Amino acid sequence: MENAFGDLEAQGKAAKAASRHLAYLSADIKNKVLNNIADDLLARKDEILKANKKDIAGAKASGMNETMMERLLLNESRLEGMARDVRAVAALPDPVGEVFDMRTLPNGLLLGRKRVPLGVIATIYESRPNVTVDISALCLKSGNAVILRGGKEALYSNKALAGVIRDAAARSGVPEGAVQFIDNTDRELVDHLLKMNDVIDLLIPRGGARLISFIKENAAMPVITGGIGVCHTYVDKRADVAKAVAIVFNAKVQRPTVCNALDTVLVHSDIASKFLPKMAKELGKAGVEMRCDTEAMSLIKKGSGLKLKAACESDWGQEFLALIAAVRVVESLDEALDHIAQYGSGHSEAIVTEDYDSAMRFLNEVDAACVYVNASTRFTDGGQFGLGAEVGISTQKMHARGPMGLKELTSYKWIIFGNGQIRP
Amino acid sequence: MENAFGDLEAQGKAAKAASRHLAYLSADIKNKVLNNIADDLLARKDEILKANKKDIAGAKASGMNETMMERLLLNESRLEGMARDVRAVAALPDPVGEVFDMRTLPNGLLLGRKRVPLGVIATIYESRPNVTVDISALCLKSGNAVILRGGKEALYSNKALAGVIRDAAARSGVPEGAVQFIDNTDRELVDHLLKMNDVIDLLIPRGGARLISFIKENAAMPVITGGIGVCHTYVDKRADVAKAVAIVFNAKVQRPTVCNALDTVLVHSDIASKFLPKMAKELGKAGVEMRCDTEAMSLIKKGSGLKLKAACESDWGQEFLALIAAVRVVESLDEALDHIAQYGSGHSEAIVTEDYDSAMRFLNEVDAACVYVNASTRFTDGGQFGLGAEVGISTQKMHARGPMGLKELTSYKWIIFGNGQIRP
Repeated sequence: MENAFGDLEAQGKAAKAASRHLAYLSADIKNKVLNNIADDLLARKDEILKANKKDIAGAKASGMNETMMERLLLNESRLEGMARDVRAVAALPDPVGEVFDMRTLPNGLLLGRKRVPLGVIATIYESRPNVTVDISALCLKSGNAVILRGGKEALYSNKALAGVIRDAAARSGVPEGAVQFIDNTDRELVDHLLKMNDVIDLLIPRGGARLISFIKENAAMPVITGGIGVCHTYVDKRADVAKAVAIVFNAKVQRPTVCNALDTVLVHSDIASKFLPKMAKELGKAGVEMRCDTEAMSLIKKGSGLKLKAACESDWGQEFLALIAAVRVVESLDEALDHIAQYGSGHSEAIVTEDYDSAMRFLNEVDAACVYVNASTRFTDGGQFGLGAEVGISTQKMHARGPMGLKELTSYKWIIFGNGQIRP
Repeated sequence: MENAFGDLEAQGKAAKAASRHLAYLSADIKNKVLNNIADDLLARKDEILKANKKDIAGAKASGMNETMMERLLLNESRLEGMARDVRAVAALPDPVGEVFDMRTLPNGLLLGRKRVPLGVIATIYESRPNVTVDISALCLKSGNAVILRGGKEALYSNKALAGVIRDAAARSGVPEGAVQFIDNTDRELVDHLLKMNDVIDLLIPRGGARLISFIKENAAMPVITGGIGVCHTYVDKRADVAKAVAIVFNAKVQRPTVCNALDTVLVHSDIASKFLPKMAKELGKAGVEMRCDTEAMSLIKKGSGLKLKAACESDWGQEFLALIAAVRVVESLDEALDHIAQYGSGHSEAIVTEDYDSAMRFLNEVDAACVYVNASTRFTDGGQFGLGAEVGISTQKMHARGPMGLKELTSYKWIIFGNGQIRP
């Protein structure tokens, strides 16, 4: 193990050393390496797919379930998709080098902030091998070195993909050491990695809630946490019922397995009898199970054939990631705000209302990354928000909140041009 | 101890509850509370100075040294200074509520980011009681609730000041619970506080390097680290010698006990024989001890009567906070850059040069919060940079870097105005 720790530390140091040069690499070279990676993903597809077959065989032997296996699988069309995504990142503007707040102080100092990379970004991720390519592309484009630690089940695939990236980097003029792949999947190495805050500037975990909370609690460096969305849509007493049904339906059904999908519907008691039966009918058609409080249950029950259950306390504040919605009747906007403050995860929250004052209060008072009036929470996404590629969705308040684009993988430094100024 | 933990958690919850309302408090009310605090600091001076006398008596009895005692002392003129500082914060623009990046998406959604407070900020600080007032004023102005934990030696003073702040808050319409003072100075409570990441959004330690690194390693919530400055000034071969001497002198001597003061002078060998004797003469007049590498020593020695010592390895990368400077001769700009990358703390670094290319390379390649050409590092300061009040100087890259003003105590949320949009 000591040797493995030593190797890991050497990788960290190499990444750190590379990051010094990556910081001022031209956009031309960064775009060249990304386009070369895209080319090589296709040129070396046989090698990658062969490695992936080994992982798939291992997964079958270990009895992995179908969903996980599906995530692990690579094929020609998926490689083409990955290559396309990398080219899309290349086409985005370079976030590094932007200078802002530049001004001349009364003493003649010319002072401003210049956008710079963070340095070294490490990522710990689970089964999907495309993360290897995605994160590497985003890090290289933003001038950061990257340390990749994927799951055991995708080891051969990740190793092949990382090899492609490293070779493309080498022939494109990217400093050696910029992309580090950890090919030892022992758990102790993760624990060790989490303490390497001398060389790692930021850690991005990609995976389930358990992985993310373990990393958050144990990492010595900053961690981007997010991806857990307990999302509410509150249907106000002055909601347009047709809009409300369409928004709730879209937020729950359009893609139920993602973090910006609806989990709980809150509805004002004044409109509940009009809204809930219509909502239940539509959600019922899509096979959504509704976990209702007593009041909601009594209003919906009449239309039968629906999947209805009594809600229990643990349903509030649960991220279902499935065709399940909790439903609760509230007596006021304040009760809705309190419910969201207590059970929300600070991801995406929506109100449906035609009342100006309720809309503005909801926007002001809800503390979440994204707060909507009369729209589906499904829009919370870097692409939808116009940020280009998305690194993830942050539910923390420091550094970046909500969808994170390339700019959120950067910091800034103050640059000061003087001509001999000293402090009086 | 269990009771004390319970009390602390109750304080945390109260602060969190207050923070929901603080988030949308008007600037008028926030300014009113600050002006009321300033008034009350003077109106209740007898009570405050009486409490301070108790701390001073305790400090004397415990054998506290003069410097520490001096920091602990309050008197009428210091209270007047504190009141003036609070009024200055009141006069700054409100950082909260600014809306930026607002635009209409192709689907008609009107989307942007709105600046909001972080929530609850806790601070752990050492002897100076003015921190109680400073940090409270900055937090209230930026709409954050605050939890204060001062040192044992200043307990009575801090308690009196916190009482003044709380009373002023209560009569100004600030939500109850916005200012929490921990009057139990048991060490176990600090450990407990560091794990209260469910209610504390940010922790700001104020004190020595040991306190800061303990907190950084043990806190479960984000911490603003900084204040440790190992600052270099590199005198390039094409430096203007008079400028270089003036800049080095100012950076070292003008206020040696602060983080942006010079620690190490690096000088190019081509100019060392011209520059070093002049520098040594000036620094010598101010009583600066110079810890020189062999080369520098041989060039300076001729002028005697100076405090010269041979530098040892631990002098590079040391923050002296005193009239001491390490001096090293380098063969090239690259060697200077390597030295700074190895030993710098990412605070403030300067080059003195008349060469355009060296200046631009230094600005590009040095990775620090503030990078200067031809100016003293002593300018690294929120006030000097035009940010108004200063919370501290961050040497981390996440969230904020360099001098932190009120804006750096905020986050943002995305606000989205729709009229029924659903995701296709």
